[in-house]
Amino acid sequence: MNLTKRCALAVLFVAGLALPSFAADPLPSWNDTASKKAIVSFVEKVTKPGAPDFVPPAERIATFDQDGTLWAEQPMYFQFFFALDRVKVLAPQHPEWKEKEPFASLLKGNVKGALTGGERAMLEIVMATHAGMTTEEFAQTVKDWIATARHPKTGRLYTEMVYQPMLELLAYLQVNGFKTFIVSGGGIEFMRPWTEKVYGIPPEQVIGSSIKTKFEVRDGKPVLVRLPEINFIDDKEGKPVAINQHIGRRPIAAFGNSDGDLQMLQWTTAGNGARFALLVHHTDAEREWAYDRTSSIGRLDKALDEAQAKGWIVVDMKNDWKTIFPFEKR
Amino acid sequence: MNLTKRCALAVLFVAGLALPSFAADPLPSWNDTASKKAIVSFVEKVTKPGAPDFVPPAERIATFDQDGTLWAEQPMYFQFFFALDRVKVLAPQHPEWKEKEPFASLLKGNVKGALTGGERAMLEIVMATHAGMTTEEFAQTVKDWIATARHPKTGRLYTEMVYQPMLELLAYLQVNGFKTFIVSGGGIEFMRPWTEKVYGIPPEQVIGSSIKTKFEVRDGKPVLVRLPEINFIDDKEGKPVAINQHIGRRPIAAFGNSDGDLQMLQWTTAGNGARFALLVHHTDAEREWAYDRTSSIGRLDKALDEAQAKGWIVVDMKNDWKTIFPFEKR
Repeated sequence: MNLTKRCALAVLFVAGLALPSFAADPLPSWNDTASKKAIVSFVEKVTKPGAPDFVPPAERIATFDQDGTLWAEQPMYFQFFFALDRVKVLAPQHPEWKEKEPFASLLKGNVKGALTGGERAMLEIVMATHAGMTTEEFAQTVKDWIATARHPKTGRLYTEMVYQPMLELLAYLQVNGFKTFIVSGGGIEFMRPWTEKVYGIPPEQVIGSSIKTKFEVRDGKPVLVRLPEINFIDDKEGKPVAINQHIGRRPIAAFGNSDGDLQMLQWTTAGNGARFALLVHHTDAEREWAYDRTSSIGRLDKALDEAQAKGWIVVDMKNDWKTIFPFEKR
Repeated sequence: MNLTKRCALAVLFVAGLALPSFAADPLPSWNDTASKKAIVSFVEKVTKPGAPDFVPPAERIATFDQDGTLWAEQPMYFQFFFALDRVKVLAPQHPEWKEKEPFASLLKGNVKGALTGGERAMLEIVMATHAGMTTEEFAQTVKDWIATARHPKTGRLYTEMVYQPMLELLAYLQVNGFKTFIVSGGGIEFMRPWTEKVYGIPPEQVIGSSIKTKFEVRDGKPVLVRLPEINFIDDKEGKPVAINQHIGRRPIAAFGNSDGDLQMLQWTTAGNGARFALLVHHTDAEREWAYDRTSSIGRLDKALDEAQAKGWIVVDMKNDWKTIFPFEKR
């Protein structure tokens, strides 16, 4: 996607046509503050041929967390809303859920009660709703849900609750020859059906948590069946591990919003040459949400201290972002 | 790499310059037999805009096995020669190996004796030579080895023992907008340090077997340490699993040479629309090696039957390939 765009630009350039107008300001939803200046300055110095910090296109790897970095994550991770909706849909096939926690509470609409079971309850909900089908069936279920389900507070589609400034940042990096990856604690197969359309990030550039799958031949047709067993948790120390496993190169830029992204930012900035690390700080209770050190979702505490100590960019959503969601623009 | 090449071609085209001369015959090392015709016919029909079998560039995913498909694999997988060389280098740090199998036999030059311990002996050799260091240290060791080690029969560098017709095929697909991936039973980190240079395949498009790694901060510097524990075996049923995990789309073309590739070819050809599957059959005892149904390395038995039943292309190296290794061309 990014290279195709670069290619289109190269063709336009050679043909003597004008570049698209956004080249003038590639980040119109960003206020003209230090965060924006730092982004532009980094991109300019790594893309300028002959400059001391020049990085060849093949090495321009940028990794993005997804929940709280590219789209919102309150009042719960959106994938958890998907799981809850699936519990309701699947309940008729599971009469035993009426008596069995965490499902019994969920079906009565008592999410908090269901989650008193902690991590184990969460895992049971995820496995009951994410495993047991083929990969193609699951992808279709996600596609159907993401096209219709709406956020409980805004009434918007979840894919409308992406951050306009981050969409501009992704496009800006892509046009400048960066290969952009998602590196999320969320489910890899929950993201892939829609990330290309929404972010310009193709499935092969999406990294996430996963459950195991098994190859089977059913009636002569090969399928991959999703098993109720964790394969990998792509969070905290897992992020550099997954980046190495999946990409095999160290990113030169990384973008996150919580302590779950700390190790990814450490790993990225420890490489040689020019490096860039950015945290999105949720500071706008009016247009979005305000939370950091004590939040159970998207806690930003240790990473905020380290960002301040190391001079990583911390985006103040309230002051740095002119627009937060694309639907505000009208 | 592939998209960069495509881009370069697009620019040349718009600028009114001639295409490189290999456009006339993109596969000069292939004899003009049915295999070559099938390849060209497939590529033409999926890349022709408006044609019924047209596939958009983003979906032109092609996966290649490595050992026996892109480079030779006799008399042993080349990675195993690497492991043997490492045992010799590391032996002074392991005086206990003199008395301990499989190392004792190896150090006496008795590979066959060492391998009487079967899979367990093999695993011990791999772990002793592939784990215990950081990912960067391991990559450097591979780079040093691959730049100097020579094949016991030909005396050539291992990277010279790649198949010239397959290099042409990779370039042909890349120029036609395909994203080419390696999907190998070999170690992912053993391949990545050199696949971009040799095949035009960047690290993020290399999939292979792996051991686990662990994120650690050592003296304030984050590192990934390679652990003596299998993470994933990318062979047989594992290949479609890894393709789904890593790429998230089904390939439209797959290339292999052994029963270890059967499931990858099944998975690839079971998708909708035009599909292509090819097996390299080692039939040239004079220029390379001849082996198939009873070989312990690269056995081709079930997959050969299935290829014949399903009409997959089976390359007869002796008759289909004008040149086998690049060094023959002179």
